[in-house]
This record gives sequence, structure tokens and C-alpha cells, in this order.
Amino acid sequence: MEFKKTFIEDLLVIKPDIFPDERGYFFESFNKKKYEAGGIEFQFVQDNVSKSKKGTVRGLHYQVGEYAQGKLCSVIFGKVLDVAVDIRFGSPTFGKYFSIELSEENKFQLWIPPGFAHGFSVLSDEAIFSYKCTNFYNKDSERSIIFNDEDLNIDWKVENPIVSEKDLRAISFKQINKEFIYQR
Amino acid sequence: MEFKKTFIEDLLVIKPDIFPDERGYFFESFNKKKYEAGGIEFQFVQDNVSKSKKGTVRGLHYQVGEYAQGKLCSVIFGKVLDVAVDIRFGSPTFGKYFSIELSEENKFQLWIPPGFAHGFSVLSDEAIFSYKCTNFYNKDSERSIIFNDEDLNIDWKVENPIVSEKDLRAISFKQINKEFIYQR
Ligand SMILES: Cc1cn([C@H]2C[C@H](O)[C@@H](COP(=O)(O)OP(=O)(O)O[C@H]3O[C@@H](C)[C@H](O)[C@@H](O)[C@H]3O)O2)c(=O)[nH]c1=O
Ligand SMILES: Cc1cn([C@H]2C[C@H](O)[C@@H](COP(=O)(O)OP(=O)(O)O[C@H]3O[C@@H](C)[C@H](O)[C@@H](O)[C@H]3O)O2)c(=O)[nH]c1=O
Repeated sequence: MEFKKTFIEDLLVIKPDIFPDERGYFFESFNKKKYEAGGIEFQFVQDNVSKSKKGTVRGLHYQVGEYAQGKLCSVIFGKVLDVAVDIRFGSPTFGKYFSIELSEENKFQLWIPPGFAHGFSVLSDEAIFSYKCTNFYNKDSERSIIFNDEDLNIDWKVENPIVSEKDLRAISFKQINKEFIYQR
Repeated sequence: MEFKKTFIEDLLVIKPDIFPDERGYFFESFNKKKYEAGGIEFQFVQDNVSKSKKGTVRGLHYQVGEYAQGKLCSVIFGKVLDVAVDIRFGSPTFGKYFSIELSEENKFQLWIPPGFAHGFSVLSDEAIFSYKCTNFYNKDSERSIIFNDEDLNIDWKVENPIVSEKDLRAISFKQINKEFIYQR
């Protein structure tokens, strides 16, 4: 398997080893020893699964204070554009984003350390997104930055985005509050 | 969410809470606190994903000695018949099996503690099976019991089973060696 650095420090793209045979395929989507050896030395305490229709944009979400979450992201079915925005105050790439297609076909994973805003858009008819978190969900600690923020200027590669009501009521990137965000 | 006992001690069926909305659905497929509260007090160190064609039977597999694995099983896409055989020497249900349909539709999970043989058959055109393990994979510690063993007499609900070469060379239930198996 491979752990590839990106232009944003600590943000990694992972390519697991796949074993295809006459039945289908098999792969380890997580292995504590191997991922630690690859630099991901966190304990994971929660796994999430979501399914979404084409055009859905979930995000951009982040968690404040002690509830900051690192997320190991993968796509089990379909294809998404996965997006991580560096909002770590003090980071040289603060305000920059990295995006990558994750799909059942490529089986790439994206490791997003604590201190990022995260979102994804669905490029296939449907997609099942699966991720492991280094911290528990806490409703009151979740924040949304508007997905089409003009400063971030993210190309989500979808027309007519489907967005939750909560995410339509999101703040702008300019409004994010230094106080409670992860310091690098 | 719900943790339901089965007729085999320690073997549990889990029904996660599902949140559907206009985008699709969301659910927590694992949460350390909630699963511990439900009685699953293990550390998980490896996650596996496999995809298989209709009729595939994977199993029956178990791990000997210190490599015994507890497995939290779920189906992300499609439908399988999941089967756990109690091979814990000393267990009142030794040699008995429990089977249950797991599917994307019902989102049930099966918690199989260490000391069981495990297998599943694929009932839908394709199925993606996902499971968390309490121990690392060790090739030399894996054993296969033949899926169509006459003593176990499991109804896999498939015609023309697709089985790996390794699993066709499996031993019978009668041949399992007391020495290295989990003692209850
Ligand atoms: C994230 C989450 C939501 N929920 C519930 C709350 C809601 O009723 C329902 C849907 O929640 P939403 O916040 O709308 O889901 P969502 O899929 O839009 O939120 C997710 O988006 C990803 C891009 C982020 O990486 C995640 O951290 C998370 O914010 O699920 C949990 O029970 N546990 C959780 O961990
Ligand atoms: C199980 C496993 C296999 N592999 C490799 C070895 C092979 O090259 C390839 C396929 O392995 P197989 O044993 O044929 O996969 P399989 O899907 O038939 O095996 C699985 O069946 C389930 C019913 C059990 O619950 C699991 O514990 C496991 O035994 O994947 C790993 O790298 N890590 C693992 O954890």
C-alpha cells in the first residue's frame, strides 16, 4: 500500500492493496499497525456511512474545540469529489483546499487530520461514503461553511447541487471564528 | 439503536439508528461508546471490505490461538446470508449455527465474538461486505471448515456456489482441533 503526501502538510492520499479473484475483491480498508506506520497515529472511535444522490454536496463541516475530528475517508460505491480545506490557524496553507476523486473503482482514501473543513459532492448516480473519525460527534460543536463560498472558490463539478437546509444556513469562510479552531 | 441477543450467548444482532433525508441517508456504523454500552467491549484494529458475486460463499473461517478475531459484520450494498458457527469448546451451543440476512436495506449488523467460525453467501447480484476485527489477520492462523459440512448442515440459500480454491480444500467440522481453539 501507499501513503502519498499532498501539498497540504499532514493531509495524505492512501492507496490500499487490493486482492481481486473469481469471487470479487478483498481489501483491508483499515489496519491499525499499517496506518500507524504510514503516519496516522490516531485512535478512531466512530465510523460513519452515508449514501447520497448525484449532485448532493455535504459540507463544508468542521468541529470546534475539543471535538475536532480527524477523518479517514473512502468511497464504497460510486464516485465523489472529496474536498478538505485547511482552516488550521498558523498553517502555511490556511484557506487552501485539496480535492480528489474517491471511488469504488480507484479505492483511494483521503486522510484529513483534525483542523480541516470537509465536504464532498456526488459525481455518480448514487454514492456510499464511509469514514472513520478520531473523535465522537457532538451536534453543538459542528459548524458549516457555505459550500459555494466565494473566497474558497471550490469547483464541486456538479450542476444543481442538493444541499441540506442546515448547510444552506452556513457561514462564510471570512466568518470563521479563530477562537475555537484547531491551532497548528 | 438496538442490541438484540440471539440463542447463542454473546452473539448479538445490532440495529443502528438511520437518518434519512432528501440527500439519501446517514448512520453511525460504529461508535466506541455506544457499542461498549451495548456489551461489545473490544478494541477493533482492522477493517475489511469485500465485494462478491451472487452465489459466492466465503468461509467458514476461523482464527486459532492468539489470533482469534471478534468480527462486527455489516453489508453496505446488496444482501447476504451471514452465518456464525459456535466452535467455542465448552459452550452449551457448541456446533450450532446462527444465520441472518444482512443487507443495505435492513442495515442490521452481526457481532460475532472471538471463537466462532464465520462465513456468508451472497443473495443479491453483488454484495459489499464490511467488517471490523478485534485482531490482526495472520495468514498462518486462518483455518477453513468446508461450507457444506454434513454435520453443520447449513442452508446457504444459493445454487451453484462460487467458492475459493482454498475453501474447497477445507477440513470438516469433525476435524477441528480442540487444542488451538478459543475456550469459553
Ligand atoms: C455527523 C453525524 C450526524 N448524525 C445525525 C444528525 C442528523 O440527524 C443526521 C445527518 O447529519 P448531517 O450533519 O446533516 O450529516 P452530513 O453527512 O451532512 O454531515 C457530515 O458531513 C461530512 C462532510 C463531514 O465530514 C461529517 O463530519 C459530517 O459533518 O445524522 C449523527 O447521529 N452522528 C454523526 O456523527
Ligand atoms: C482476511 C484477509 C485476507 N487478506 C488477503 C489474503 C488473500 O490474498 C486475499 C483474500 O483472502 P481470503 O482469505 O480468500 O478472503 P475471504 O474473504 O475468503 O476471507 C474472509 O472470509 C470471512 C468470511 C472471514 O470472516 C474473514 O475473517 C476472512 O477469513 O486477501 C489480507 O491481506 N488481509 C486479511 O485480513
